[in-house]
Amino acid sequence: MKIVIIGSYGHNGYALDAAKVNPVIEIIGIAPGVEDENVQAVYNELAGEYNIELYNNYKTMLNKTKPDIAVINTVFALNNKVAIECLNRGIHCFIEKPIACELDDLKKLKTAYKNSEAHLTAMHEIRYHPWFAAAYKAYQDGLLGEIQLITAQKSYGLGQRPDFYKNRATYGGTILWVGIHAIDWIYWFTNGEISEVTANHTTTGNCNHGDLESSALCFYRLKNGGQASANIDYLRPKGHKQYADDRLRIAGTKGLLEVRDNKAVIITDKKTYELPLAEKKLIFNEFINYIYKDRDFMLTEDVVFRVTELAIRTRMAADQKRVITL
Amino acid sequence: MKIVIIGSYGHNGYALDAAKVNPVIEIIGIAPGVEDENVQAVYNELAGEYNIELYNNYKTMLNKTKPDIAVINTVFALNNKVAIECLNRGIHCFIEKPIACELDDLKKLKTAYKNSEAHLTAMHEIRYHPWFAAAYKAYQDGLLGEIQLITAQKSYGLGQRPDFYKNRATYGGTILWVGIHAIDWIYWFTNGEISEVTANHTTTGNCNHGDLESSALCFYRLKNGGQASANIDYLRPKGHKQYADDRLRIAGTKGLLEVRDNKAVIITDKKTYELPLAEKKLIFNEFINYIYKDRDFMLTEDVVFRVTELAIRTRMAADQKRVITL
Repeated sequence: MKIVIIGSYGHNGYALDAAKVNPVIEIIGIAPGVEDENVQAVYNELAGEYNIELYNNYKTMLNKTKPDIAVINTVFALNNKVAIECLNRGIHCFIEKPIACELDDLKKLKTAYKNSEAHLTAMHEIRYHPWFAAAYKAYQDGLLGEIQLITAQKSYGLGQRPDFYKNRATYGGTILWVGIHAIDWIYWFTNGEISEVTANHTTTGNCNHGDLESSALCFYRLKNGGQASANIDYLRPKGHKQYADDRLRIAGTKGLLEVRDNKAVIITDKKTYELPLAEKKLIFNEFINYIYKDRDFMLTEDVVFRVTELAIRTRMAADQKRVITL
Repeated sequence: MKIVIIGSYGHNGYALDAAKVNPVIEIIGIAPGVEDENVQAVYNELAGEYNIELYNNYKTMLNKTKPDIAVINTVFALNNKVAIECLNRGIHCFIEKPIACELDDLKKLKTAYKNSEAHLTAMHEIRYHPWFAAAYKAYQDGLLGEIQLITAQKSYGLGQRPDFYKNRATYGGTILWVGIHAIDWIYWFTNGEISEVTANHTTTGNCNHGDLESSALCFYRLKNGGQASANIDYLRPKGHKQYADDRLRIAGTKGLLEVRDNKAVIITDKKTYELPLAEKKLIFNEFINYIYKDRDFMLTEDVVFRVTELAIRTRMAADQKRVITL
């Protein structure tokens, strides 16, 4: 199975992790997604392990190598265009999230997908973290009852980011780049049964990162009458060993579940306990099994299209400081 | 200093805690705030310690004993009316929160206060918990910089509540009864600089408690461009030793602060550490010092009026599923 990598601004590591354990995967090429993107360092790392070639232009690479799957992670707002080029050539796409930064771009991607034989997914990989997967299993097993209140968090340190983060046109916005994970969890646990969103974001404290929003808050009404929020920030100071702080708290009619510090803890009427962690599955292998073995897959095209649309509408609600009915 | 207690549905304990250490406080009478309220148990407890009399009617008690301060904690929606009776007699009022459940009632209370020589405050006592007070001091000391994102939580077990909790007209709603503390923290740390609110609440999972909302979520836009939320629930199952779970997380441009588990932890660019806890101050003594010694007080009339109005408007936003400009 021939795999190429386009770009190096995102999580191509998800594919490389799978390549280490899955012998069918051959990494055969790498190219930048945009002209000034430097993929030399990634190429150098991989050249020792794989029979990989470095290309200057990803379209040349696609045409020459005719890969089975493209791992797409260039400048965030451009992943969409690269994916469309791949789909048009019948190449399956493993795309960095968000798979589109504007509704128009999402529509174009959907059309390209519809007209292609190829599959695609988005790197909503956190669903596969063993503590998140364990939490979802507990929900499926009925331990939470009906979900009423979800609060999700993504918190990072900012540090110094590449220049394209400073521009909305290339970065897409913090709700889309960071927040989409929290939005994905909310979508996942509510099965997308969300009726309304409003949101807010601000650039204050972004340490000269231009348009980049340093914090955001998203508010959702659920179709069952309940509610959910996602709080997102890059305001995590350096004086903590932990770089990121993902959290998810879910209050249901039967149980209260919390994911934090790489653990999932549940409170039921009988006891409080840490859930046994789920087996670690590799998203790229799951995608391959979906494509070639028709296996069940959490992140089907329909799901990633819907989550992306929800995230884009959430950012619109924040930009326009208004409520959007979904 | 003559103190009377009216009702026993709330936190008259705040006054009793002060009485234990402050010899000027004499608890001289107790009466129900409504006809079917049983204050016998509280009377029995206090009769051994204080020269206290039990009355059937609080107005009779007020007229006969002419107390200096009334501790008011009857059926939540009626504390307001009792307070007005006290203010009209020139008696200072230490009132269970919320001090009003409707904007009209708040207006009446404000008018009674304006026309009285007496002072009043609300039992927004959590501000005095040493971890919350320590957090506020850290903010005042500039350790957080400019506040961008606040997430606050109030989570309780429900158990079996008195019947008046089941009726909006007597209970006031969960945003007002439970949520007002989280709303108070948001008001406190933002100095009330809030421009807009929307909110949601639901009764699902309230175990036959009628109108009582089992969970709620409040969303605020701050005037500085930032944002805040309060998530509130009674969905804490019995299988946890902890009955309540108050939390406050504040992300500022300089520091990130978290209050949880009776601790306050701050992350700055240099280090992560637990804040030294503030000295425990008793809200009732602070109120007395405000009245009689003109000392600084966090919960002045102006503050508690504004916080109460914010909480009522938040509940309105949830009832009407709309955005309210403040």
